[in-house]
Amino acid sequence: MASMATFIAKAPYPHHSFPKTFNTHFAPALKLSLPLVSNPRTRQRLRISSGLIEPDGGKLVELFVSESAKAEKKSEAATLPTIKLSRIDLEWVHVISEGWSSPLRGFMRESEFLQTLHFNSLRLDDGSFVNMSVPIVLAIDDAQKHGIGESTKVALLDSDNNLIAILKDIEIYKHHKEERIARTWGTTAPGLPYVDEAITKAGNWLIGGDLEVMEPIKYHDGLDRFRLSPAELRDELTKRNADAVFAFQLRNPVHNGHALLMTDTRRRLLEMGYKNPILLLHPLGGYTKADDVPLTWRMKQHEKVLEDGVLDPETTVVSIFPSPMHYAGPTEVQWHAKARINAGANFYIVGRDPAGMGHPIENRDLYDADHGKKVLSMAPGLERLNILPFKVAAYDKSQGKMAFFDPSRSQDFVFISGTKMRALARNKENPPEGFMCPGGWKVLVDYYDSLVPADNGKVPEAVPA
Amino acid sequence: MASMATFIAKAPYPHHSFPKTFNTHFAPALKLSLPLVSNPRTRQRLRISSGLIEPDGGKLVELFVSESAKAEKKSEAATLPTIKLSRIDLEWVHVISEGWSSPLRGFMRESEFLQTLHFNSLRLDDGSFVNMSVPIVLAIDDAQKHGIGESTKVALLDSDNNLIAILKDIEIYKHHKEERIARTWGTTAPGLPYVDEAITKAGNWLIGGDLEVMEPIKYHDGLDRFRLSPAELRDELTKRNADAVFAFQLRNPVHNGHALLMTDTRRRLLEMGYKNPILLLHPLGGYTKADDVPLTWRMKQHEKVLEDGVLDPETTVVSIFPSPMHYAGPTEVQWHAKARINAGANFYIVGRDPAGMGHPIENRDLYDADHGKKVLSMAPGLERLNILPFKVAAYDKSQGKMAFFDPSRSQDFVFISGTKMRALARNKENPPEGFMCPGGWKVLVDYYDSLVPADNGKVPEAVPA
Repeated sequence: MASMATFIAKAPYPHHSFPKTFNTHFAPALKLSLPLVSNPRTRQRLRISSGLIEPDGGKLVELFVSESAKAEKKSEAATLPTIKLSRIDLEWVHVISEGWSSPLRGFMRESEFLQTLHFNSLRLDDGSFVNMSVPIVLAIDDAQKHGIGESTKVALLDSDNNLIAILKDIEIYKHHKEERIARTWGTTAPGLPYVDEAITKAGNWLIGGDLEVMEPIKYHDGLDRFRLSPAELRDELTKRNADAVFAFQLRNPVHNGHALLMTDTRRRLLEMGYKNPILLLHPLGGYTKADDVPLTWRMKQHEKVLEDGVLDPETTVVSIFPSPMHYAGPTEVQWHAKARINAGANFYIVGRDPAGMGHPIENRDLYDADHGKKVLSMAPGLERLNILPFKVAAYDKSQGKMAFFDPSRSQDFVFISGTKMRALARNKENPPEGFMCPGGWKVLVDYYDSLVPADNGKVPEAVPA
Repeated sequence: MASMATFIAKAPYPHHSFPKTFNTHFAPALKLSLPLVSNPRTRQRLRISSGLIEPDGGKLVELFVSESAKAEKKSEAATLPTIKLSRIDLEWVHVISEGWSSPLRGFMRESEFLQTLHFNSLRLDDGSFVNMSVPIVLAIDDAQKHGIGESTKVALLDSDNNLIAILKDIEIYKHHKEERIARTWGTTAPGLPYVDEAITKAGNWLIGGDLEVMEPIKYHDGLDRFRLSPAELRDELTKRNADAVFAFQLRNPVHNGHALLMTDTRRRLLEMGYKNPILLLHPLGGYTKADDVPLTWRMKQHEKVLEDGVLDPETTVVSIFPSPMHYAGPTEVQWHAKARINAGANFYIVGRDPAGMGHPIENRDLYDADHGKKVLSMAPGLERLNILPFKVAAYDKSQGKMAFFDPSRSQDFVFISGTKMRALARNKENPPEGFMCPGGWKVLVDYYDSLVPADNGKVPEAVPA
């Protein structure tokens, strides 16, 4: 049976997916903390010479209508039944259209939905498996189903009635909500954020099919420049001559414990024989629950962390992962890892209780803190990905900085909990020196400062730990 | 992606796992409705020459202590912490020890438990997958965990304190009940029979390890002669020169619709080129819910069906499948199919809503009636098994017998529901002639007759449809 020895087991073969000759033309790394989007013309050439890990299914899916076909598609869409997309639906169109969920080519049909729920993986025509752990589905209600009638296609519109995509070869099937929730979250307790937001009030049918997307999804919130597609990330990583890419998924501010971990991971990869490991610092940018720190503030904080030199801009790519957040623990961490394979990452850092949260109605964590990394290490379709378990960092009083916890001198360490950190930032107090870079901390203080206190004088709690 | 075309896709290669030479020494079939248990001495020789489907993991697991080691194991067990087994626990020891769950060698450790919950499959050391969809686990409480202390082994006792087995190289881990239930059943609604019986009141820890079982499990209820192990079934099927084995899982009386289906399946297999397809009529013998017809009555009914010639004793093996019943629909049907591979079956008949039941608190079926066969056809580790979807049979008034439903003359057909059948049997009325053989029907009437009416005058409802 598979075990947590995955990292060890795969480590002796660092060049397996990277031809040795690749490292001989080692170009100077670009001094960019934020990658430039590459010219689409040059992209294709670069991608062909890339030694990055292959996307799931062998080929990165991109589902955009060509410029020459747009007018025709628009005319066609005008004749079709329409479905208005929610913000989360739109985020999923974004995810699918850029190939984060390769080889998926649209919202799931029932066979894909069932395989996802029961097996967390999809079997391909050649008998191989790719990982797929969260249902990527589009719900419709009875009236919409009736309106679609016998049509084999529908037009998908945004909230302003702009045409986003055509969904073709559609299949409509029952939305078994209770079963979907139970099998995805391992609980049906009321109060799961994604469930409340996107499932409970959604329609009783799901509509699957293949997507033809009019153009890349943009949000015009000043952050689109950070939203690199898997193809764009692969270009950037190739330009930087990455021979190992380690992804760090986050939805919280970066403190020096995180930074230590990322720096240490690069050191370990260099020791293993890689010449140029690149960090993909990859904050989640889709739907998050109300008490998470909003994306705009997190991106400001991440920029400061790079500006302050806590992470090396030469070996770090910061980009936004457009997926909505499920908070589904061991099930969701597979999705987070799988999507990063498609963006070119062959190492994935996994922490304690990834994608976890408190149980919505019981006084405990929803998931066993160790299950995320255990499940990830055994997941079908992720065999090619090297899983790097997160080492625990804490504030080391003897050194006055964040350090990996050493149980032999546990009295030297202080664990600064999320609650403690929030209280400090809300009260404009400073954490111990060395906990977070000053610029990053200031962003956090500014965020809490910007919140209008509720009537009861309480500021909403964010979860930055 | 896989589809329901599994049957078609695999059909052109009937001899793939059966060398053609195998059929050349075609022995006369034994005239036995109930197979004799073969002599253990001859078993090994026969099994080697068998062309039956390989067990999962390549080798059938059998976990019995050799005669020569028994005294030593008994002495050792006397020094170990003990765990008393419930009836369901004992049934699982039975299942594991005979290799129905091959390649499992004991109660699941956490890595197997997690793979079962998330992936319905286990990855073997060679990277291949076997199916494993229901957790086979042993629960202990805080006091038992404390009593085990640092021991690496425990002795398992039955309710009379007889030594059943030693569990060695143990691993104790948390019993996350809510998550187990949600991921196995797709609901956490109160009233799931197996949950009420074996999970809710069970301990908060699970103990995994390898089993050393003192001797084959017997129940001394007059039915042990029907409880053939996978090895014994393989011997019997080999003796009969089976070149295709089609398993029919059931937990209800056999009516002529079932019989028609089984006879028709044999006809189809002959048409496909098989020379001697054998039916494994395989009633589930472990825990069932209170309103199911008890095993003893079902076995009486099955005997009558063979006596009355509804099924051909020459091409039918009747045996008891010792597993407890989960009523977990699409999840459980995979277990039912996988276990039959280990017993030598390479064809599995799957009906509408297999292992399903009514939702415990909502007025609907718990599972989509089609999901069982869909999930089964796509399940990892079951690729070698040919799935045969159940054709719907109903009472054809024009012929006065059960026949496959023909939608072009639907007015000729009467669907006799379980409720209707129960009402008839309770009232000692007869169903339409041709619905069930008279001997089998009499057993059903006798069963209801034997029930002592409850205080309210109501007879408990059985579910024979």
